[in-house]
Amino acid sequence: MKGAWIVDQGCVDVTTCFQVTRRLHEEQTPYQHLEIYESPRFGRMLVLDGAVQTTEGDEFIYHEMLAHPGLLTHPVPRRVLIIGGGDGGLLEEALKHPLDRATMIEIDSAVVRSSRQYLDVISAGAFDDPRTELIIGDGVAYVTEGRDPFDVALVDSTDPVGPATGLFSEEFYAAIARRLTPQGVVAVQSGSAVYQHDLIAMVRRNMAPSFPTVRTYVATVLAYPGVVWSFTVGSLGREPGAVPVEEIARRTEHFGLRYYTPRGHHAAFDLPPYLRAAIEPR
Amino acid sequence: MKGAWIVDQGCVDVTTCFQVTRRLHEEQTPYQHLEIYESPRFGRMLVLDGAVQTTEGDEFIYHEMLAHPGLLTHPVPRRVLIIGGGDGGLLEEALKHPLDRATMIEIDSAVVRSSRQYLDVISAGAFDDPRTELIIGDGVAYVTEGRDPFDVALVDSTDPVGPATGLFSEEFYAAIARRLTPQGVVAVQSGSAVYQHDLIAMVRRNMAPSFPTVRTYVATVLAYPGVVWSFTVGSLGREPGAVPVEEIARRTEHFGLRYYTPRGHHAAFDLPPYLRAAIEPR
Repeated sequence: MKGAWIVDQGCVDVTTCFQVTRRLHEEQTPYQHLEIYESPRFGRMLVLDGAVQTTEGDEFIYHEMLAHPGLLTHPVPRRVLIIGGGDGGLLEEALKHPLDRATMIEIDSAVVRSSRQYLDVISAGAFDDPRTELIIGDGVAYVTEGRDPFDVALVDSTDPVGPATGLFSEEFYAAIARRLTPQGVVAVQSGSAVYQHDLIAMVRRNMAPSFPTVRTYVATVLAYPGVVWSFTVGSLGREPGAVPVEEIARRTEHFGLRYYTPRGHHAAFDLPPYLRAAIEPR
Repeated sequence: MKGAWIVDQGCVDVTTCFQVTRRLHEEQTPYQHLEIYESPRFGRMLVLDGAVQTTEGDEFIYHEMLAHPGLLTHPVPRRVLIIGGGDGGLLEEALKHPLDRATMIEIDSAVVRSSRQYLDVISAGAFDDPRTELIIGDGVAYVTEGRDPFDVALVDSTDPVGPATGLFSEEFYAAIARRLTPQGVVAVQSGSAVYQHDLIAMVRRNMAPSFPTVRTYVATVLAYPGVVWSFTVGSLGREPGAVPVEEIARRTEHFGLRYYTPRGHHAAFDLPPYLRAAIEPR
């Protein structure tokens, strides 16, 4: 292991080490320690409090898979709320849909600023889209105190420590449900499907009182701890598994996606038995 | 990162580190450096030449997914050949099918001996099954020089360096095809779908002259480099994608599988577009 390496402590007893060629940026923001590295394998990497958040090389997997399963579960999403996601990758994916408006609320302006400066290929101009409304502020307060309705809410948070803690609570999911239109959908990243089974179970438990349908799905996010990553959808209307592949094909035809596909939508929700057993109450 | 750790150098610029509590066994065999560790996350781990080969915690994923997609592609497998796989996990999965005989040829008797001593939960008695024929010898020579026919051949090799090099060649796949019955199937592990795209492409290229149908599929093997692992099937008969889910459900009903499922069979072959583009010739 020659050269410079960064260590992502995915769980207490397994870590991933990435070779890096240089650190492009470092700052202590009011919320977290932010670093941007250049790596030969994944290109530029955004690291918050020592945890890899996104990389140029695999961001399309995470962002496609946080955006599209939830957006496709809603029959006609027009107004989308994004909480977190300061790098802009999720915003870019959401804006591929024929939206009227995408409102993004990010607590840490430094993430947006440094991502626009160093990781602009991830947002790919999404911050300049006329449909984008960017608010720097607290997502929990925004959802709880506001009144404008949304069709779909997407929660792109860090781990449930520090600034993101409130984004995993039962009260927060209830507040989101109140802001959604009748067929409304929420989709959240719910942690590593290898190392965070308790977190996934907690998200499902906290979402259940407010959403009649709660479904967990996975995708392989290459630079994340354990690689198998979980996402959880709460729906007030359609069952994600009931979205016809033909509808998905039609609605995503011109998106130029590299991971999410119509059949892949359904396969993602079809968890292997060992994983289903680990996250569902017995 | 306190305590003792082992480092698996998955590729030149990314590594995975596993905390271990003790080394149960170490020896230099005539073919490779063999170690067995105890780890809090994955239980006991078999390490050959510094690369994690299998663990008690995730072996079921690798072995189910190397055995069953190929075995189900054959309509009635009775005689199965296993090349490599000295830990016995693949043998155990194959014997869940109503076989007449499973012939296993492993080059390194030390792998079998130490696996039976320290990793017996992986083979789960398969070595003592009356249908098992274990041969210690060279897989390439056995396939090339023998004449008995097989319905399905499964190749559970290490990386294509050292003793396993010949198991990835065009000549070897041609020799396997000559040993197979008319509806015969071969399935091989073909490397990390994150770090070894060239290896996957080579396997596909070398299999193509001898097998009219060549299909690559993936599974998430938790302790392997990159986690997304590839397998490649060559078929003289059925297309793996044409096996009805009802048939898979019927034939695997009493197997007690934890990863492989009837719908999962088809999802595994439905590669995401970015991966398909990386391994198929343009």
